[in-house]
Amino acid sequence: MSTPADPVIKPLPMRTAFFVSDGTGITAETFAHSVLSQFDMPFRQIRLPFIDSIDKAHLALRRINETCAIDGQRPIVFSTLVKTELSDIVRTSQGLYMDLIQTFVEPLEQELGMKSMHTIGRSHTPADSAEYRDRIEAINFSLAHDDGQSNRNLSQADVILVGVSRSGKTPTSLFLAMQYGIKAANYPLTPDDFIRRKLPPALLPHKDKMFGLSIAPDRLAEIRHERLPDSTYASIENCRYEISEAEKMMQREGVRWLSSTTKSIEEIAATILQEIKTEQRSG
Amino acid sequence: MSTPADPVIKPLPMRTAFFVSDGTGITAETFAHSVLSQFDMPFRQIRLPFIDSIDKAHLALRRINETCAIDGQRPIVFSTLVKTELSDIVRTSQGLYMDLIQTFVEPLEQELGMKSMHTIGRSHTPADSAEYRDRIEAINFSLAHDDGQSNRNLSQADVILVGVSRSGKTPTSLFLAMQYGIKAANYPLTPDDFIRRKLPPALLPHKDKMFGLSIAPDRLAEIRHERLPDSTYASIENCRYEISEAEKMMQREGVRWLSSTTKSIEEIAATILQEIKTEQRSG
Repeated sequence: MSTPADPVIKPLPMRTAFFVSDGTGITAETFAHSVLSQFDMPFRQIRLPFIDSIDKAHLALRRINETCAIDGQRPIVFSTLVKTELSDIVRTSQGLYMDLIQTFVEPLEQELGMKSMHTIGRSHTPADSAEYRDRIEAINFSLAHDDGQSNRNLSQADVILVGVSRSGKTPTSLFLAMQYGIKAANYPLTPDDFIRRKLPPALLPHKDKMFGLSIAPDRLAEIRHERLPDSTYASIENCRYEISEAEKMMQREGVRWLSSTTKSIEEIAATILQEIKTEQRSG
Repeated sequence: MSTPADPVIKPLPMRTAFFVSDGTGITAETFAHSVLSQFDMPFRQIRLPFIDSIDKAHLALRRINETCAIDGQRPIVFSTLVKTELSDIVRTSQGLYMDLIQTFVEPLEQELGMKSMHTIGRSHTPADSAEYRDRIEAINFSLAHDDGQSNRNLSQADVILVGVSRSGKTPTSLFLAMQYGIKAANYPLTPDDFIRRKLPPALLPHKDKMFGLSIAPDRLAEIRHERLPDSTYASIENCRYEISEAEKMMQREGVRWLSSTTKSIEEIAATILQEIKTEQRSG
């Protein structure tokens, strides 16, 4: 007998998507998300990282085929396996095999007139490279210069984010450091600064590196309420005052700024990066 | 007249690679790096993010074609443009066009028996989604629980990293939070703990969430020397002692651990994630 809570339509079993990689699988996964998000349906997602031997490739193959049997429909397999002896194994699964690397490497080999290296785990910079050390150094720098903690070596900063408390400075700074190796300091604009009507003195020599974050007062009040409920700090009146003063100050001082209200830290970071540099080299 | 410093062989002009996106371009860029790294040559890299209008698509097209003329060879164009009215414009450039999304969306439409949404900027979670808020909350949590700063709410942590000073706990915690929305606390193992021969008391109720990081003593000494040159803290003898004691303690207490010596934070994070959870759902 059917109760009122029974679903009227039995949902289709969920499709499974596998992210198979010889490394961390982060690239495969992030990228596959973009592709899957084009479809208005949920996917059960399974990460299979560090598939770097024939044995592990066979285990991955078995797991995919077992899932196919259980689901009763083909899994989607996103693979960044580079070595052909590994991808040739996983490719034979009953899933829909999408080769994220080889699909583009082949036309590139033609265009560049050279063979690819078929190396493994090159999707991220190795831990002993200068680029990797720069990233770690940038993370340490950004942490040490979070929230105006230190004025030491501000001249080494690539960018200095300013804005009122909880406008998004800290996560953006860390993201810039982690993703791009950018040394991003951040500095709060506080009611003290608004009364003095001047930027914090330590920042004055670095105006060209400053970038402001603003935010809609109601969103700011919401975020601050989560932190300190029912405080003056979080009140909408105070948020309106601080934002209005901060925006006036940035305008007066010629500091570029953007609103973080509807932007993710990725979007804020990419916008800032466009302002401070648009070209990079890699080798 | 030629001076001894002149290069004997004139290098080929560098190829330019464009990363064109309607959003931040981060997915396009990270992914294209994996593909380009399969070739043993440098690429000049230009990011063209936020190409979200017909006008901007025409500007991108012009920039690519100008670069083609200047370089005297075809640029490589990696695109994650989703809307066909935009990709149709950039696709006509003189560069080699690689459509990172459509290439996989088409076979998926067939497999899934449904049309894709052709939406824009879906590669990252929108700033107002629950998933995004969880990530920001995780970043704040990880920062508040960096280096044993706070024992409050340790029960809310998804993972607690332990290890000696400078073994890689902080950047790994932040990466876990930022990339996966994992609440990652981290806690130092110090000489005090080694003398007491016990884990820090605050951690004892949370043993199942603990994950240790170790590191080769000579690498640790190198990292510590950069921070505090010629200190006892950084001396190889002290590093050997701390690492040996930390590893003994983790073994005694049954804490899983790995060596961070040659691993990037991505690799450490992916390994930890495999231990604590291998499946995720998304909608």
